[in-house]
Amino acid sequence: MNQHPDYLLNKISSPKDLKKLSLAQMEQLAQEIRTLILEKDAAEGGHLGPDLGIVEATIAYHYVFDAPKDKIIWDVSHQTYPHKMLTGRAYGWLDPDRYEDVTPYTNPEESPYDYYAVGHTSTSVALATGMAKARDMLGKHENITALIGDGSLTGGLAFEGFNNAAIEKGNLIIVVNDNQMSIDKNIGGVVTALKKLRDSNGQSPDNPFTAMGFDYKYVSDGNNLQDMISAFRAVKDINHPIVLHINTLKGKGYQPAIDNEEAHHWVLPFDLKTDKTTVPAPKTPNATTTVIDLLEKHIKNNEKILAINAAIPGVFGLDVIKNKYPENYKDVGIAEQESVTFAVGAVKEGIVPILLENSTFLQRAYDQLSHDVAANDLPVVMVVANGGITGGSKTHLGIFDNTMIANWPNWEYLAPTTLNELKSMFDWAVKQRKHPVAIKSPVTPVPEGEVVDEDYSTIHYDIKRGKQVAIIGLGDFYQLGEKVRKLLADHSINASLINPKSAAHLDVEALNDLKKDHELVVTLENNSLAGGFGEKVASFYGPSDMKVMTFGEKREYTDLESVASIYKRNHLTPDQISKDILDVLHQ
Amino acid sequence: MNQHPDYLLNKISSPKDLKKLSLAQMEQLAQEIRTLILEKDAAEGGHLGPDLGIVEATIAYHYVFDAPKDKIIWDVSHQTYPHKMLTGRAYGWLDPDRYEDVTPYTNPEESPYDYYAVGHTSTSVALATGMAKARDMLGKHENITALIGDGSLTGGLAFEGFNNAAIEKGNLIIVVNDNQMSIDKNIGGVVTALKKLRDSNGQSPDNPFTAMGFDYKYVSDGNNLQDMISAFRAVKDINHPIVLHINTLKGKGYQPAIDNEEAHHWVLPFDLKTDKTTVPAPKTPNATTTVIDLLEKHIKNNEKILAINAAIPGVFGLDVIKNKYPENYKDVGIAEQESVTFAVGAVKEGIVPILLENSTFLQRAYDQLSHDVAANDLPVVMVVANGGITGGSKTHLGIFDNTMIANWPNWEYLAPTTLNELKSMFDWAVKQRKHPVAIKSPVTPVPEGEVVDEDYSTIHYDIKRGKQVAIIGLGDFYQLGEKVRKLLADHSINASLINPKSAAHLDVEALNDLKKDHELVVTLENNSLAGGFGEKVASFYGPSDMKVMTFGEKREYTDLESVASIYKRNHLTPDQISKDILDVLHQ
Repeated sequence: MNQHPDYLLNKISSPKDLKKLSLAQMEQLAQEIRTLILEKDAAEGGHLGPDLGIVEATIAYHYVFDAPKDKIIWDVSHQTYPHKMLTGRAYGWLDPDRYEDVTPYTNPEESPYDYYAVGHTSTSVALATGMAKARDMLGKHENITALIGDGSLTGGLAFEGFNNAAIEKGNLIIVVNDNQMSIDKNIGGVVTALKKLRDSNGQSPDNPFTAMGFDYKYVSDGNNLQDMISAFRAVKDINHPIVLHINTLKGKGYQPAIDNEEAHHWVLPFDLKTDKTTVPAPKTPNATTTVIDLLEKHIKNNEKILAINAAIPGVFGLDVIKNKYPENYKDVGIAEQESVTFAVGAVKEGIVPILLENSTFLQRAYDQLSHDVAANDLPVVMVVANGGITGGSKTHLGIFDNTMIANWPNWEYLAPTTLNELKSMFDWAVKQRKHPVAIKSPVTPVPEGEVVDEDYSTIHYDIKRGKQVAIIGLGDFYQLGEKVRKLLADHSINASLINPKSAAHLDVEALNDLKKDHELVVTLENNSLAGGFGEKVASFYGPSDMKVMTFGEKREYTDLESVASIYKRNHLTPDQISKDILDVLHQ
Repeated sequence: MNQHPDYLLNKISSPKDLKKLSLAQMEQLAQEIRTLILEKDAAEGGHLGPDLGIVEATIAYHYVFDAPKDKIIWDVSHQTYPHKMLTGRAYGWLDPDRYEDVTPYTNPEESPYDYYAVGHTSTSVALATGMAKARDMLGKHENITALIGDGSLTGGLAFEGFNNAAIEKGNLIIVVNDNQMSIDKNIGGVVTALKKLRDSNGQSPDNPFTAMGFDYKYVSDGNNLQDMISAFRAVKDINHPIVLHINTLKGKGYQPAIDNEEAHHWVLPFDLKTDKTTVPAPKTPNATTTVIDLLEKHIKNNEKILAINAAIPGVFGLDVIKNKYPENYKDVGIAEQESVTFAVGAVKEGIVPILLENSTFLQRAYDQLSHDVAANDLPVVMVVANGGITGGSKTHLGIFDNTMIANWPNWEYLAPTTLNELKSMFDWAVKQRKHPVAIKSPVTPVPEGEVVDEDYSTIHYDIKRGKQVAIIGLGDFYQLGEKVRKLLADHSINASLINPKSAAHLDVEALNDLKKDHELVVTLENNSLAGGFGEKVASFYGPSDMKVMTFGEKREYTDLESVASIYKRNHLTPDQISKDILDVLHQ
């Protein structure tokens, strides 16, 4: 039920309605939008700081421009709650029963005011430049705007976009939303450049935008609605590329989000009175705390460890390392390519770099992990988080890391089945100084398990020996294998259960040995099947009589679908798997 | 035999020997180096312009600094012939019998003066920054230098590197080698920024480097040896990051290379008197000319075609399009990420973007082709060149494109077996406006073939029907399949031969139908086996009695190994394949 039937927002079904309002009414709207963001985020979690900071700019944009004919591309699109509320989707905030009806990122399937599904940073300027070029080729005349945060500016694609945008011939408006933050504190020379511009009220001659040939305007208070309206009016229908640099306050309207911006970039459900999360703390130890403990252990042991991440310390709980061991910590900003190539430089000089990467963003560094790391066969260590099936947006899926990492020459990609195995793999990865090693951090909870101390230079499978059927459960899907094994036992099948340890290298001897008394090998992996681990096993057994069944996710995108539903559609429940196995055995 | 026993260069076995020379002697050395570059390139082909332009800077560097303790990272490393000659490898130019003994890119296996195998651009600053950080952690004190060309500056990783380099605390020297060219004419806002600096003799306040916080120095004639020595002396042992911007002349010392820089960036063997190539022109029509003809046909047909490439028009012969149809042509500079995301912007607005990408550099755009294109399921068209086994450097291998493209959801990856099939696939890709489609341009020559006009929305295999064994020859390896089929016929095996057309989608009906009277399916693909086409077929047949053998390249890097040798080691000759097949049939 609509919690705020009295809100002015109820009368805004599209930006057209906005254009009838007075400034005072729009300021009231800004208040309403902020309240709604806080209420829904408190109930459900979501992006907070970026949305609170962009309220006035969004209202001003839709007041001045004529979307969807005029087009705005929101970088990352994690700041589009106000945009969504003003473009016919306010119900998704007004009515808790409809919270789920509006998705968190821009979504062209949801609204004609959204142009792309976007969740990775730094794409907006390139997208807008392509649209501007196309508009000119087609003889059309609408305004094309990209809105990019200062955090996203550090990503290389943003720069490539600016480099090309600078020489476009027609209308192109690039709003640099400068809130002095990426997810964590912003990093690097770009910070310096933007600070000079803010400190000089946009007048500093040291201006990287005008250096590249852009026209440039500065708005000192991007949260002042009247100023933003004037600024947008001044650039509307402009006939050349311009950078509109606006200074905004991330988290504006909610003091805890201003005081601690990183913790309020994205929030779990929380109590609006205390700002405390209402979600119970995750059980410890878990994979995240284990990795942090391992980093600390090796740093304390005076090994030359450098923990490197690209603007996502929160994903790994890296604040401990950052605060206690700043010399052993490097955040390169939103710049995954840099994180890897920087690590290559460090490892060559004798440091042990530990890359901490999120599976979905890892895609950004594909070439660096291949050309810079693999072709040079350097012992970079990498921990991959969220590499598996999750219920996230289709822009944030992490189901392709087996396909990337396990197919490059020279890389080892280890997948632990327990926390103690994670420790063993990490210790070995740091100690061996021969090849690049990545570790797939478990996505589903894994048990602590028995203490292990193993050399993974050559992969030797752990086998609970049975016969007829062998189940190979990779990483956190090993436990799924255990469940399947139990179900098969009910059918008098004493299946073997195997921990393969590696997504990249097969234990050929063990696999050959299975041929003696097994007729079917089943692989389970928490990854896309396409190009993954199972296909390698199937290919290995191809010329033999052994049958192989591969379980994992189909080649598909899922979008905010529950994990249970994804599992079911992909035949990944123990019941489905055992039934499928029995079907093949009896065919 | 040494062709120039009289050269001073014979006395330089390491940079130490260089330090004893007078300026006049070093100028003589510069002449010798230029002559040798021209002589070897004329005989063998190789990079020309970049090496001719960097002679003085290289001599000055090794005169002033103390390599290999002091370290210089050469971006792309296509300008390191002078560096190699001064670091004990002059024999690779002096003696034609030893031309093959020195490799074209930096190579740590070849010399302690080379630190990385590098062939992709824009990595040097990130590498040097990682090295500088490691040096400081280890309490060492050497000079770390990156040398990056203005062309490489347009790559996003370069910018990410600069952004982090700017905040390093210790010694870090970044030489921006500004020759006003990438491979083709340089592109974008960076051009504008550098021009302002050159035109003002480094004095323009519009300085993107100082804006980011760098110290900055300018050398107006980077081909003046004395000036370069002075400049390097001034920055040696500096205690903070500095950008040393040097203005050099690409191709200096060879007028044709100055007059037409793009054509002389990299050259085939040529006649020094006439500058004409001594290599016979490739037979036409071939895959390259076919793609150009197709582009021209669709442009003339007034379809809204935009041919997009990232600074490699020469690879595709795109000069024709650039000159005749400038409105339908876009070179984004060395910026593969931008090429793709720009295309996404254009296609969304109703243009048909045709990306022309080199398989090895395509890796740079992995995330854009996944997150920006695939997750949005937009009908971008892409032609992939050099996707297959070649005899190139390990930094330039193109054997991973099946593994990348055919494993993303929504992408189709077509592989033509003839030039007419290439036409049919291209025409369909442009016409269908539903999904992203890539085409694997043949690497080995393919015949013209019969005219085809097909809809590839659903893949239907072309089958020359036999029995017992089915050979599936993907793309340019179809002809290999034909040869194998003939050899099997000598053993009374009437094998089926299949053109599968797609690396991404299987014709399930056809594959199931083979089960009736075939016991073995053989896949042939010009790609790495890991994550490739064959593994998909093996996985498909996994639960059945069908045996599968997959042929392609092992998961490995090759480095300047001949194609014949790579084929042989990987059992890719018709004789080896047919023997392997017979072995499995008789086992």
